[in-house]
Amino acid sequence: MPDTVIPASHHDLLDNPIPVALATIGPTGYPQVTYIWAIRDGDTVVTSLTQARQKFRNLQARPQATLFAVDPANPYRTLEVRGDVTIAPDPDLATLSAVVNAYGTTLDNFAGPRNDRVSIRLRPTRVVTQG
Amino acid sequence: MPDTVIPASHHDLLDNPIPVALATIGPTGYPQVTYIWAIRDGDTVVTSLTQARQKFRNLQARPQATLFAVDPANPYRTLEVRGDVTIAPDPDLATLSAVVNAYGTTLDNFAGPRNDRVSIRLRPTRVVTQG
Repeated sequence: MPDTVIPASHHDLLDNPIPVALATIGPTGYPQVTYIWAIRDGDTVVTSLTQARQKFRNLQARPQATLFAVDPANPYRTLEVRGDVTIAPDPDLATLSAVVNAYGTTLDNFAGPRNDRVSIRLRPTRVVTQG
Repeated sequence: MPDTVIPASHHDLLDNPIPVALATIGPTGYPQVTYIWAIRDGDTVVTSLTQARQKFRNLQARPQATLFAVDPANPYRTLEVRGDVTIAPDPDLATLSAVVNAYGTTLDNFAGPRNDRVSIRLRPTRVVTQG
């Protein structure tokens, strides 16, 4: 299997409603790591960000990111997805809605901001699994 | 409190025997994230790496790294430590020994490689906590 494919053995680490770590590179060159809600769409990973966040600005400047997910029942079972990011508008909040639904809530009940939302898609250039 | 201090409220995320994510920047510019064993030494974080690992080569080339730790009981309680890395020899394996001891084993029982070990210290330039 090419290592740009997210293997089925580790799909659950993205398909569960557990936050995953997203690493971007900040303006001063340090990696920045934050927890986000994300969903798998085939072999890509999708999330929703507001344009007010530093991680969005990082991705605008350097559209290379790495997602890291861990099995909550076994910290030695992990999934790392390095890839290229594309940013698209999300005017009807379809992406935000899909993400919050996957995390057990609805757009109506979502407490976070809705303004200036964009859809972020990570296309793997390298996938590494452990465990 | 300056944000280069690891606040006592989140010390447990480093002082427990749970692996933590280390983000470095790889040769092609993508963040690389892997799970490592690491210990807190005051306001720095220390780990042991073999020089054979890609993450070591990443740190040699770009000594900026970010550590990310999550409370296993609450995924919304997190600690991010961005900082500058210094690399030092570990000829008597004092660092490796301290790290494996903190993770519940001994140097004699440690199954990983002992050759070419170096001591890695991360000095925070920015600490971000959530939860």
